[in-house]
Amino acid sequence: MKPFHLASREYCASDTVITIASPADSVMVGEGYCTVIAGPCAVENRTDYIKLAIRLKELGADILRGGLFKPRTSPYSFQGLGRSGVDILVEARAETGLPVITEIMDIRDLDILYANVDILQVGSRNMQNYSLLEELGRLDKPVMIKRGLSATIEEWLLAAEYVLKGGNRQIILCERGIRTFETYTRNTVDIGAVPLIKQLTHLPIIVDPSHATGKWKMVAPIANAAIAAGADGVMVEVHQDPDHALSDGKQSLTPENFAQMRAQLLKHAQINRKQPSTAR
Amino acid sequence: MKPFHLASREYCASDTVITIASPADSVMVGEGYCTVIAGPCAVENRTDYIKLAIRLKELGADILRGGLFKPRTSPYSFQGLGRSGVDILVEARAETGLPVITEIMDIRDLDILYANVDILQVGSRNMQNYSLLEELGRLDKPVMIKRGLSATIEEWLLAAEYVLKGGNRQIILCERGIRTFETYTRNTVDIGAVPLIKQLTHLPIIVDPSHATGKWKMVAPIANAAIAAGADGVMVEVHQDPDHALSDGKQSLTPENFAQMRAQLLKHAQINRKQPSTAR
Amino acid sequence: MKPFHLASREYCASDTVITIASPADSVMVGEGYCTVIAGPCAVENRTDYIKLAIRLKELGADILRGGLFKPRTSPYSFQGLGRSGVDILVEARAETGLPVITEIMDIRDLDILYANVDILQVGSRNMQNYSLLEELGRLDKPVMIKRGLSATIEEWLLAAEYVLKGGNRQIILCERGIRTFETYTRNTVDIGAVPLIKQLTHLPIIVDPSHATGKWKMVAPIANAAIAAGADGVMVEVHQDPDHALSDGKQSLTPENFAQMRAQLLKHAQINRKQPSTAR
Amino acid sequence: MKPFHLASREYCASDTVITIASPADSVMVGEGYCTVIAGPCAVENRTDYIKLAIRLKELGADILRGGLFKPRTSPYSFQGLGRSGVDILVEARAETGLPVITEIMDIRDLDILYANVDILQVGSRNMQNYSLLEELGRLDKPVMIKRGLSATIEEWLLAAEYVLKGGNRQIILCERGIRTFETYTRNTVDIGAVPLIKQLTHLPIIVDPSHATGKWKMVAPIANAAIAAGADGVMVEVHQDPDHALSDGKQSLTPENFAQMRAQLLKHAQINRKQPSTAR
Repeated sequence: MKPFHLASREYCASDTVITIASPADSVMVGEGYCTVIAGPCAVENRTDYIKLAIRLKELGADILRGGLFKPRTSPYSFQGLGRSGVDILVEARAETGLPVITEIMDIRDLDILYANVDILQVGSRNMQNYSLLEELGRLDKPVMIKRGLSATIEEWLLAAEYVLKGGNRQIILCERGIRTFETYTRNTVDIGAVPLIKQLTHLPIIVDPSHATGKWKMVAPIANAAIAAGADGVMVEVHQDPDHALSDGKQSLTPENFAQMRAQLLKHAQINRKQPSTAR
Repeated sequence: MKPFHLASREYCASDTVITIASPADSVMVGEGYCTVIAGPCAVENRTDYIKLAIRLKELGADILRGGLFKPRTSPYSFQGLGRSGVDILVEARAETGLPVITEIMDIRDLDILYANVDILQVGSRNMQNYSLLEELGRLDKPVMIKRGLSATIEEWLLAAEYVLKGGNRQIILCERGIRTFETYTRNTVDIGAVPLIKQLTHLPIIVDPSHATGKWKMVAPIANAAIAAGADGVMVEVHQDPDHALSDGKQSLTPENFAQMRAQLLKHAQINRKQPSTAR
Repeated sequence: MKPFHLASREYCASDTVITIASPADSVMVGEGYCTVIAGPCAVENRTDYIKLAIRLKELGADILRGGLFKPRTSPYSFQGLGRSGVDILVEARAETGLPVITEIMDIRDLDILYANVDILQVGSRNMQNYSLLEELGRLDKPVMIKRGLSATIEEWLLAAEYVLKGGNRQIILCERGIRTFETYTRNTVDIGAVPLIKQLTHLPIIVDPSHATGKWKMVAPIANAAIAAGADGVMVEVHQDPDHALSDGKQSLTPENFAQMRAQLLKHAQINRKQPSTAR
Repeated sequence: MKPFHLASREYCASDTVITIASPADSVMVGEGYCTVIAGPCAVENRTDYIKLAIRLKELGADILRGGLFKPRTSPYSFQGLGRSGVDILVEARAETGLPVITEIMDIRDLDILYANVDILQVGSRNMQNYSLLEELGRLDKPVMIKRGLSATIEEWLLAAEYVLKGGNRQIILCERGIRTFETYTRNTVDIGAVPLIKQLTHLPIIVDPSHATGKWKMVAPIANAAIAAGADGVMVEVHQDPDHALSDGKQSLTPENFAQMRAQLLKHAQINRKQPSTAR
């Protein structure tokens, strides 16, 4: 028996495919689909976010991302709009018909986020925040667990096990780069995690090439690599004006670059028999 | 200006020395002192813990450690006694006159731990749990911040900055080994962090050779090295019967080994002009 | 000016494409081509190697690999046939018409290898063996430089610079996985190195998914990822009977698996406008 | 049986203590002794080196270091005086009566270095240069093997095993810092390697705090830590004018700082029952 029992292929041989709640079309995440999650690192203000969300819908994004609570290394950096930004996500969701994902950092925000967003994201810094994982295990809501900065594959799957043990089976794993000695890139994307996760577990895995590399020029090549390696999708940062983003501008695509990336991505996905996540 | 402004030497040139509340003698932590924190990884039951606490007091320990909330990689491992164990720490504190330190994992346990223990420990998995750090910043209670598994020196000091920014200046840093490629030891103790922290900041630093190595035979040599490098103390795991410990037995000293280690430690401390932490 | 001046895009904007000497068709390595190098980790005996070489030619391999001098961590492991195996490579080359690549470990073997093989490989353990690199810089023969186990991108390019400085411009870089904390895989393939090398330098880059992962089941997904990320080819270990290989059996493909991998690889290559390396 | 058989405690329970050839007093390296090796990173010219050597002898150094062949990351950096500098080492040896150690990078320099220096050093970049190790195994001359930048303890001991297997038992291991994610220091000194090597093997181990930290202010604290942890000595870089050194100036001590460091070092050594290496 694997230490991550409920997450293992031995426990469940068939792939877990998750249907994400959505105001419009249903969005599928898992084997057979190529899911594209897009949006800015942080929601900065209502006007820009809604405008970008509508543009991303037109360009084919399946799910909208937008951070409200930003875990910043420095207490002096922009920390996100917090609870006051929830309405913006709600509006973007209604406007576009797309489901939204945002990060939860504090158990005390669980109620408001549960009521208003479609996927709750556990950030890499909180991958081993077991109190938080246990609370998420009690919900009937999809959870995305980002891999910790230096978490082994086994530790990552044991974090998922904390959620599974509580009864919540709707888990998406997200590889976002690990910490190594290399300094040219922000992190080192562990592309090997993709086939490994597919062998060890039945859960979907997506890749975040924006955080993994920290450089927008590398986002498309790594997104393509992820899909070619068998990933079920990607999550990328897009900003209407990367040079003036309040956070992560250097790793953000423009909407135009996003559209190009997605077109190429779907070609690689087709070779691996993966269809777009949203039937339209 | 350093990114960790309040933590920096530039902001405060003189060393921060913390006086720990205690039922009996006052315990000093910081430059000029060699503090020895000892106890089991987890409090397992009342009888054993009280007995060991009394023994450790006799053997010269300055502060008692004992985990109630254990952040375990697997949800199937022993998770600690939780809130029901607080009374045991309170009793040990009263019996021995020594201050106690325990880890806080969940903001919701803040009230009970604040009221009953002398130092609140932030574990390495929670070093970047900023919601927790912000709450601790509002307290008038010493906080020990363990270095994250793959946290840089700068990220560690920025975690301290979150607490300092809130107004709480009573911070102890604890180097407990970082994650590297080496697999013979549980972690790799970054002994260089000791002189570096002393140069960059005014905060006290202690070393945890038990978690850093994972092997009890290495605890004494690394404890000696820490003090020789200039650390202000060590935190070691001691168990009355390491072979039957519910967690971390392999890295726990017996009381006899602890006594030997402490004797040698104080000799190295003397060379570095550090006196025992508790005046007796 | 970049520290790796001659290797940089600033020095030479156009991609270096290398024509490998070959008894039959010419083999191109560089932008626009997808080169497939295949063969066993080590040449074990004449019969098996020649048989496998012929099979690999039929299955579309562009270049044959076969180690004679094996840098083994333990002095008690099989060290390769050494100089006595050179004739086997020569025979395989003549039989198949394919160029051959083998590793050089010792400067004293330079004459015999220069005279008999088409590409000289510098292994990851010798990436900073500067005496060896300087000798290779004086040759008119392609050199493949594998990235050191924990070499940064910059150190790797500076190793290439040692060869370039001597006058030899025929350099192929090979990403083969770096050392990290992860233990499920032998190494961690740094897929980000592919787009990064393409941006920083004009030299071709290929990926070795066999050493990078240590698991044959991961070889095809990682090979696909490499090509999707923009790599100019892959080098894979193939063995007629992996279970009985004298070295690296666990990461070796059977000829059948190799054929499947190559077919899929060329589809991903086509999306990136890369054609097979050998015109046939 | 350990994979590093000849190096293991199981093969040889008693500590290996090596007597270094010397024009004057005999110098002992191993358990019971604290050996201090000092000198500049590179020999820069005759006058300065001889002058510094005489000063270091007065200040208590046991062995002189001085690099002739410098393995530099960039081909454009100062590469050392090479063979033309051998006479300078010979003269310093005669003047001071101290044995000398220098690095060998190329097998073709073996004859001249064997004839003229007392300890041959294998640098971290060449730790797995097996051709070189095999040649050193055939000599009757002490060899110092520096740990590779990302070598595990086991790989390091297997490098020693290559030399031992050839018949040469005079091996000194040198921990000089490993590569990690931390960037404040040049490398991360693995102080745990000291007690671990003492448990696993009978060979002496010394620590190089200069390369390990890259900062001269950290050299003394780390040297003290090494001795407190049980190391048999240290190797430190000393330069008469660190600000104008051709290499490694930032990590070099002045002669005055060296004298202070040594005085403190011997106090920690005494606690661990280690006496100065040279009887005088």
